[in-house]
Amino acid sequence: MTTSIPATGRTLNETDRTRHRRLREQGSLDRAELDAILAAGFVCHLGVTVDGTVRVIPTVYGTDGTTLYFHGSVASRSLVSSPGADVCVTVTHVDGLVLARSVFEHGVNYRSAMVYGAPRPVTDDEEKLAGLRCLTEQSAPGQWEYARRPNRKELAATALLALSLDEASVKIRTGAPEDGDGPDAELGLWAGVLPLRTAWGTPEPDPALGTETPLPPHIAARAGTPAS
Amino acid sequence: MTTSIPATGRTLNETDRTRHRRLREQGSLDRAELDAILAAGFVCHLGVTVDGTVRVIPTVYGTDGTTLYFHGSVASRSLVSSPGADVCVTVTHVDGLVLARSVFEHGVNYRSAMVYGAPRPVTDDEEKLAGLRCLTEQSAPGQWEYARRPNRKELAATALLALSLDEASVKIRTGAPEDGDGPDAELGLWAGVLPLRTAWGTPEPDPALGTETPLPPHIAARAGTPAS
Repeated sequence: MTTSIPATGRTLNETDRTRHRRLREQGSLDRAELDAILAAGFVCHLGVTVDGTVRVIPTVYGTDGTTLYFHGSVASRSLVSSPGADVCVTVTHVDGLVLARSVFEHGVNYRSAMVYGAPRPVTDDEEKLAGLRCLTEQSAPGQWEYARRPNRKELAATALLALSLDEASVKIRTGAPEDGDGPDAELGLWAGVLPLRTAWGTPEPDPALGTETPLPPHIAARAGTPAS
Repeated sequence: MTTSIPATGRTLNETDRTRHRRLREQGSLDRAELDAILAAGFVCHLGVTVDGTVRVIPTVYGTDGTTLYFHGSVASRSLVSSPGADVCVTVTHVDGLVLARSVFEHGVNYRSAMVYGAPRPVTDDEEKLAGLRCLTEQSAPGQWEYARRPNRKELAATALLALSLDEASVKIRTGAPEDGDGPDAELGLWAGVLPLRTAWGTPEPDPALGTETPLPPHIAARAGTPAS
C-alpha cells in the first residue's frame, strides 16, 4: 500500500512524532481513515507515564469527530503527578495474518491510529454528559436512550478526560504477502492471508432478569454483525 | 470476580506498579492466568518513551513461558536514547459488552495482562532464531516448519527484544452486570452481556500463487476457530 494523501478531503498534520519513519508505505495522512479506524472500535490502549513508569492501559473511548473521550482514573494519577504531560492513545484492529513464503516476510494486516496530546479533564457537567454519551454510543449504539443516564452523584464520581484529535497518525496494511514475485515464489509454498473476523455474538441475559423482560431491538440487531 | 490467589500453582509477585489499586476485584495473581492471556493472543501494545514522548505501538509477540519476544524497531530507538529504560507490554482480549440498567454500571468483559521491565536486545543468533520461532508459532502454529526460515542476512536485519515475564499484572472481568440486585432492577430494563467473538476466517490465497499449490493442513484447520 502506498502512502495515501487524498486528493480531496482533510489531511492529517505531520509532526515529529506522527511522521512515518519506517514502513512508510503503511502510513496514511487521510483524515477520513483516522475517523473510520476510531469509529470501528471502542477499546483503546492508553499510554501514560505514572511515577516515571510507562503504563499501557486498555480503556473504552468515544469520539465526536474532534475530541476523543476516555475514562480518567489511571490517567488522572498521571495528570496529578505531571500536569500537562502528553499521552498516546492507540486504537488497533487486527484484520489478518500475512503468511508469506519466508518467515521474514510474515506480517499482519491491520488498521491502527495513534493520537497524541495532553488530555484535558472534563469538569463541566454538560460536556461530561455529552462525552459519556459519546463513550456509551461508541460501544453500544442506542444504550444512551435506553439505559438510565448518570445522575448528579454518578456524574461527580466519573473522571472523564478529553483529548484533541489534532495530532494523530494512521497506519494500515492490507493485501497479500509481498514475496510473490521474488525468488521464494519458486519454493512452491502456499502463501496468502488468514483473515481475522470480530463479530458480536448472541446476547446473554443477566440471570437476575425476569423472563418477561424483552431484548430491545438495538441490541438484538447486533448479533452476528462485524465488530471492528 | 474476587481477587484470585490460587491455592496451588505459581503466583505473580506484586510490585508498586503491578499492585492493583483500583477495581481490585478484577485483579488476579494467578500465574496460570497470565500465561493463558499471553497464549491467546499474538498482538500486544508496547508502551515506550521515545524523545520524552510516550508511544503505544501495536506489534506481534511470542512467549516461551519465561520471556516475551517482540520486534524492536521503535523500541530500539527508545533503548538507544534511554538504555535500560522500562517498557510496558499490554495484551488485551475483549470478550463482551456489559450492558447494565444504568449507564454508570456499563462495562467490558475482558482479559488483560501487563508486563513491565527493561527489554534486552537479543544478539545471539541461536536465541534470535528461537525467539523468532516463538513469535512465528504464536500467531501461526506450524509456519516455522512450513515456511522458509530466516537466513543469515535476514537474521542480522531483524531487531528482536526479550522481556522477562517476572513483573506482570493481570486483570479479568467476566459475567453479568452488577446492578441486578439494586434499585435499578425495578426499571424493567433488559440487561446482560453482548459477547464479542474473534475467529479465523477462510484463508485467502495470494493471487500470485499457482492454482496447483495446496493449502497446507495447519492453515486450513484454523478457519472458523476462535482467535483469542
